[in-house]
Amino acid sequence: MSPDIRVVLVEPLYQGNVGSVARAMMNFGFSDLVLVNPCKLETEARAMSSHAWSLLQGATVVGSLGEAIDGASVVIGTTGISGVRFDRHLRIPAYSPREVKDRLSGSQGTVAVLFGREDHGFNREELKLCDMIMTIPTSEVYSVMNMSHAVAVVLYELSNIEHGENRLADAFDVHLFYDHLFELLDDMRYPAHKKEKTKLMLRRIFGRVGLLEREVQTLRGVVRRIQRNLDKDQRH
Amino acid sequence: MSPDIRVVLVEPLYQGNVGSVARAMMNFGFSDLVLVNPCKLETEARAMSSHAWSLLQGATVVGSLGEAIDGASVVIGTTGISGVRFDRHLRIPAYSPREVKDRLSGSQGTVAVLFGREDHGFNREELKLCDMIMTIPTSEVYSVMNMSHAVAVVLYELSNIEHGENRLADAFDVHLFYDHLFELLDDMRYPAHKKEKTKLMLRRIFGRVGLLEREVQTLRGVVRRIQRNLDKDQRH
Repeated sequence: MSPDIRVVLVEPLYQGNVGSVARAMMNFGFSDLVLVNPCKLETEARAMSSHAWSLLQGATVVGSLGEAIDGASVVIGTTGISGVRFDRHLRIPAYSPREVKDRLSGSQGTVAVLFGREDHGFNREELKLCDMIMTIPTSEVYSVMNMSHAVAVVLYELSNIEHGENRLADAFDVHLFYDHLFELLDDMRYPAHKKEKTKLMLRRIFGRVGLLEREVQTLRGVVRRIQRNLDKDQRH
Repeated sequence: MSPDIRVVLVEPLYQGNVGSVARAMMNFGFSDLVLVNPCKLETEARAMSSHAWSLLQGATVVGSLGEAIDGASVVIGTTGISGVRFDRHLRIPAYSPREVKDRLSGSQGTVAVLFGREDHGFNREELKLCDMIMTIPTSEVYSVMNMSHAVAVVLYELSNIEHGENRLADAFDVHLFYDHLFELLDDMRYPAHKKEKTKLMLRRIFGRVGLLEREVQTLRGVVRRIQRNLDKDQRH
């Protein structure tokens, strides 16, 4: 088995694009489409979806990105803007579709791939929900792709992820691990002015690993042991 | 240097698609666009081309596929239909975009990549002009991609062909070699009922090799030598 790919369109503006995305998904054998506050989907969406109209009709419509990524083990934001620019502080690396494919190969679970608004992409809060950032390598002269083209290129690449047995950790368990890790920062009296930035960075680092079930358990064991040692030191 | 990629649209029907193709070309750093008897290119083409309108305005418009591939060392036809179906007799293999990229890596010269009509693709005569056939691996349930999506996926793949020093043979020299080879079939009194099919097959075999300059010279030397030996035999 390979990961289940969920395509999430965040507040798409043009119904023709949404229709084209549905068609590209069906071309590459995907069907899990989630739309966050989409534009109206009428004649043009239907025309562009061609034989994928029923896929589009079956899409899940939600009111927030949080709902859209519910249950996803890994959340990947696709952007035409390179990593450095959208977050000066964290400079998280942006992976190419090929690199994302390689990182996901051999794993199982749900992977949500996010595409932002045609005009402004994602906002900061949305980017914080992403475990990885993916950028299609394009010309510097004109890097902004049509959204449905970006979806087609990404799905072309992700449609042949190698099969494997490694189950990605559930989003729920990963978040328990994050909470545990952040609790540790509090226990350590980590400098308050650096704490938020460090938490985000830790989340990014572990996010792009694509943690497996057993790895999350081991990491939580490590955090627990550190906490116990901290307690002891503080007692003396 | 890598090969120069020329995108050829054969009688495109929808101006929105042509505009989208121009945008995808500019996204991936390509500019050589040739249109064979295109539809009218007006408001919708301009809208879909976005910042690539000048690229579209600079496209070469021709009246036949022959003119469109003039000077190309390798001609590649892109089709959603697998190799076996469009030519029962020849069963030429269809390469994926990745395989085409690998075959072209390290070479120089002009490579024409052809995309057919949105409804009927290529006709038989047009397919005969192709040295290679490329197919994007898609779902069997719904394999027909939007034309501009197909262009985006192909250019994504071909935009990072490895550089190299191997100059592809000029189309002119390759055709002299074919003529020479076919002359040899005539000299050998090759069975007339098989001759056309064999010629086409030979053309396909050498076509998908991506012959280099020095290889064509060597092959012509071999053909010349065979001809001389045939002459001698026939004299005795």
